[in-house]
Amino acid sequence: MTPRNDLFLRACRNQPTERRPVWMMRQAGRYLPEYRAVRDRVDFLTLCKTPELAVEVTLQPVRLVGVDAAILFADILLPLDAMGAGLRFTAGDGPTFDHPVRSLADLGALRDPDVERDLGYVYDAIRLARRELEGQSAALSVPLIGFGGTPWTLAAYLVEGGASKNHGRLLAWSWEDPRGLARLLGRLAEVSARYLQGQVAAGAQAIQLFDTWGGLLDARRYRELALPALLLVVEALGGSVPVVYYLNNGAHLLPELLALPVEVVSVDWRLPLDEVRAILGPERVLQGNLDPAALLAPPERIAELVGELLRRGAGGGHIVNLGHGILPNTPPEHAKAFVAAAKRHVPVAPGGSLQASR
Amino acid sequence: MTPRNDLFLRACRNQPTERRPVWMMRQAGRYLPEYRAVRDRVDFLTLCKTPELAVEVTLQPVRLVGVDAAILFADILLPLDAMGAGLRFTAGDGPTFDHPVRSLADLGALRDPDVERDLGYVYDAIRLARRELEGQSAALSVPLIGFGGTPWTLAAYLVEGGASKNHGRLLAWSWEDPRGLARLLGRLAEVSARYLQGQVAAGAQAIQLFDTWGGLLDARRYRELALPALLLVVEALGGSVPVVYYLNNGAHLLPELLALPVEVVSVDWRLPLDEVRAILGPERVLQGNLDPAALLAPPERIAELVGELLRRGAGGGHIVNLGHGILPNTPPEHAKAFVAAAKRHVPVAPGGSLQASR
Repeated sequence: MTPRNDLFLRACRNQPTERRPVWMMRQAGRYLPEYRAVRDRVDFLTLCKTPELAVEVTLQPVRLVGVDAAILFADILLPLDAMGAGLRFTAGDGPTFDHPVRSLADLGALRDPDVERDLGYVYDAIRLARRELEGQSAALSVPLIGFGGTPWTLAAYLVEGGASKNHGRLLAWSWEDPRGLARLLGRLAEVSARYLQGQVAAGAQAIQLFDTWGGLLDARRYRELALPALLLVVEALGGSVPVVYYLNNGAHLLPELLALPVEVVSVDWRLPLDEVRAILGPERVLQGNLDPAALLAPPERIAELVGELLRRGAGGGHIVNLGHGILPNTPPEHAKAFVAAAKRHVPVAPGGSLQASR
Repeated sequence: MTPRNDLFLRACRNQPTERRPVWMMRQAGRYLPEYRAVRDRVDFLTLCKTPELAVEVTLQPVRLVGVDAAILFADILLPLDAMGAGLRFTAGDGPTFDHPVRSLADLGALRDPDVERDLGYVYDAIRLARRELEGQSAALSVPLIGFGGTPWTLAAYLVEGGASKNHGRLLAWSWEDPRGLARLLGRLAEVSARYLQGQVAAGAQAIQLFDTWGGLLDARRYRELALPALLLVVEALGGSVPVVYYLNNGAHLLPELLALPVEVVSVDWRLPLDEVRAILGPERVLQGNLDPAALLAPPERIAELVGELLRRGAGGGHIVNLGHGILPNTPPEHAKAFVAAAKRHVPVAPGGSLQASR
């Protein structure tokens, strides 16, 4: 069933829209008191694994902030947990793995997950979120985005055993034994492909792939190490739903993305969208890219910055978003100001529609 | 007195050299067992503040690894300690400040340091290191590099109270009250200028400015926030010695550096040097930029990578270095292989000298 507010899905397919859709990365998160109230009751992993609660926080920003798409509340590391890596979240310090993978022997010890059984809670949340969204009034009945990490980014956590400052272990492996690491990346691609196909089957209407750590690599190493496994995942999704590829800190890698068959490229704030588009061409839909820290500015300044963002993004298809996750110290009123400004500014072109203004 | 191995200083001034000089960022560090032996006896801050020990570890890589320049062992945060911010280093977790600066009131509470009194241990170490270096045999008698952090990067630590994942407090201040933050940056520039002038007076033969966090900013914000205070520091050094500006993660900012009057621009590994040079022009000396993780590859692969680095850097003045600090898990033999390969490869041009090959 087509959602009644389908701006986001039409924009992904580069079809005309009355205005540009807007949503925010990590929109269901700690900046919202309503989210913190849920978290006061359960820990992070329990929240991910309890469909009713995951759906509750998934829908909060739709209702409270007015975004044009909901993104499932989950974590990119959940499939690694299903593989038996022993994922835990410690307060303040983020994710850790009881069984990091630093050799082919470690890789061999991982389970081959049955995604329906081991990650069924994600699919249950997707089905429940879709039902809830379809029961909303027209404006709040928005598409649901599923997501995962790219194989390279999943490996960045799994090899280090959690977050890392310099990724010494991952990079050591990449230089000492690139073929061994390629086997890990291939395995992560296989599991991710099945996991994300399951998200689509359960009702996810688009998939965003988060490549938080792709920007660690120079172009040649990105091409050799990260891209082959990423392509396996993208190809497995095979046009079933639009795919959004988010690359953090990758201004130097943009020419490599010309070869990536995804509908939408989502970038951080480091390069203005018109410069990104000059590299990627006018046909690629872009998503982004306000500096999340800009939401700490006064609301009237946020509105100005959104105006500039819309001008910079006007040369082609554009989904308004931040360049990275919203900061936890963002006042909710400022998040609302961002969304409201994006909805208010409708550049009117001679033809009357945004897409015609290109 | 001119050091007898003055390759580095001539290269900084874009003068002809028989071969390209090579040194490594953080070359006096944990990858060396000889350094760890010293650290086993004293904590990090005591090491910085004890000239004899600081000089001992400063000279280790000259003797052990064969680099063409020594960089003083110190920390960019020492002047903040002298300002009364209460710097401590905790094992594993890095620097913390007892008195972070998050408001103009906090700024007002900082001391105006007497650099000769409060940072005299740095100057003593410089004088001692110069004497030691001049007593070495010709090949080991290399120039001494002094250094500091840029005002923006110093602020990144001082405002957050230590290392930070997302710099939420710094960025909040930059958006909420850019003029207030500019006052902090101006104050840091003043203190840095005096501190670094003192390093030159004590005998530092070049100054490297580390901008670890400049790459957080997009070009306009870099111009507005980071550059004015940086220019104050560069101008205060006023051509007394060559200035090397190291910018981490700043491929998107290179066009801004055309306006920066420094002799050498040092870049991370994300863009190959020929692409960096295409933006900065053939007259700017470049320093860098092997991925420090590449030193984890087998030595024969390191030699190949250095060969490629030298080819990529051949279009103008080039000081061979890493793109960021050497990783602590680097085998010392690999660091030696890097330096040896850089010394071995002498591209011979028709005119016979490297510089003539441009």
